[in-house]
Amino acid sequence: TPMEAQSEFTSFPHASPPVRSLMSDLVSAVEQRLGDQLQACTLPPDVRSYRNDSGAASGSLHIRCGKDSSKVDFILGSWLHCQLPNGAALNITSLSGYLCSSTDAPNFLLELIQSSPTSLVLILDLPPRVELVTHPEYLSTFYEDTELDSWRQALEKVPEARPYFSSALYIRCVVSPTAIMLRIETEPGLIERMEEIVRDHVSPVAKGVLGLWLEQCVSGERVLSETERAALEKRDGITRRKTIEIDLASNFPRLFGPEIAERVVGILREVFGV
Amino acid sequence: TPMEAQSEFTSFPHASPPVRSLMSDLVSAVEQRLGDQLQACTLPPDVRSYRNDSGAASGSLHIRCGKDSSKVDFILGSWLHCQLPNGAALNITSLSGYLCSSTDAPNFLLELIQSSPTSLVLILDLPPRVELVTHPEYLSTFYEDTELDSWRQALEKVPEARPYFSSALYIRCVVSPTAIMLRIETEPGLIERMEEIVRDHVSPVAKGVLGLWLEQCVSGERVLSETERAALEKRDGITRRKTIEIDLASNFPRLFGPEIAERVVGILREVFGV
Repeated sequence: TPMEAQSEFTSFPHASPPVRSLMSDLVSAVEQRLGDQLQACTLPPDVRSYRNDSGAASGSLHIRCGKDSSKVDFILGSWLHCQLPNGAALNITSLSGYLCSSTDAPNFLLELIQSSPTSLVLILDLPPRVELVTHPEYLSTFYEDTELDSWRQALEKVPEARPYFSSALYIRCVVSPTAIMLRIETEPGLIERMEEIVRDHVSPVAKGVLGLWLEQCVSGERVLSETERAALEKRDGITRRKTIEIDLASNFPRLFGPEIAERVVGILREVFGV
Repeated sequence: TPMEAQSEFTSFPHASPPVRSLMSDLVSAVEQRLGDQLQACTLPPDVRSYRNDSGAASGSLHIRCGKDSSKVDFILGSWLHCQLPNGAALNITSLSGYLCSSTDAPNFLLELIQSSPTSLVLILDLPPRVELVTHPEYLSTFYEDTELDSWRQALEKVPEARPYFSSALYIRCVVSPTAIMLRIETEPGLIERMEEIVRDHVSPVAKGVLGLWLEQCVSGERVLSETERAALEKRDGITRRKTIEIDLASNFPRLFGPEIAERVVGILREVFGV
């Protein structure tokens, strides 16, 4: 049942309490606002929850596609957990929202990458779906008039936060100029301080940006010409293909082995339509 | 004469010794490599050198356009100096290279903004001329295969350097994913340390990036279809118009008064073709 599928995803068994609480709140906000536009999650059980042979790596995927009348193409939630050779664990938790080509409004992207309890890479953005350089009015509408950068500026003030530059240049290209890409490191052992930062700083900003996406991107009306829509579909296809390629195709087989990787990435390619 | 026009620009009367030395070296490198492709500077004397009524603000502009056979549209050098109400002075020194639509290779951009002898904002980039998101092969050619990011990573290690986020979101959009945008602050009074940073860290990187531009962007062959060339011309027009609007149109009248502003910005619009 949809309830069970969701509970596997929202249990976040390896996340710290404030990360679990943040993710639950975000998923609730999406459900509350968009629930009646979304279909139930129809993923097979072995993709909703998977683990490798040794049990050292496990993960969960949760996808709800938009109904035909919705501007939402799909909402994708995921977590994965992986014990590292050095004794620490890698935990990646993400929530993203992709819109249909009936609107060119930005998507939503949140990714929390923890390679130890005192280290967090945060990626939070509304990635644009047209080129901002040639569409200054799109830049004004979604990024300037919304004062989206004030969220980034707020988090930049956290003393333990440093700008994060993805080693994949393509990822730097697809995000917006207001993207929050931070590496937060607290001193070894100061797990409480990391939990405080997530609770008091990261959470309100993530909720604010998601709220803005729900209010102004999913809900706003955008009128597109045939040409614009064709260009949008082409661009969406390229970014989705590259995202899977960079994010998953290289790391997944290494972490989970070829069989699970093929199964999970295969489902994602299907949902992404690429 | 061309020699006189250049000497007004390359005297850099208000720059610190290492900034003056860096700029002279960069201008020499451009002259040596591209000199025979460039026309003499034909700017009127009151644009090659200008100052406001009180004498508190002065500046110099130096432009050499490419000959018809060259891929260089124009090389633009500029400095401006402005005494600030707080007793400090603002010094902006820049060198940029714009290519013609016979190639879509990146432009060159260097800007040094000093609002005091211990504060420097550095912008150094090869801004792309096509959208990288939809042209991953352009990203590989000019940014990945050239290892351009290694220059950024080198400067990032300077302890006094912090990433700089332009308040103009548009500027964040036009630069490449390997753009060097840094704010470097040394402790009050530590002018020698700033000069050391410019000499030992900023200079080699600026020369490296300019060298790469001269070798691989100005010189390489790029084959463009009619459609690609039309799109390139349109995009160049938009970015050039926005650059003048953001960089100059707002600040220049305030610093130099309407008459000088109109004269200098007018010439720039002509050269930029917008």
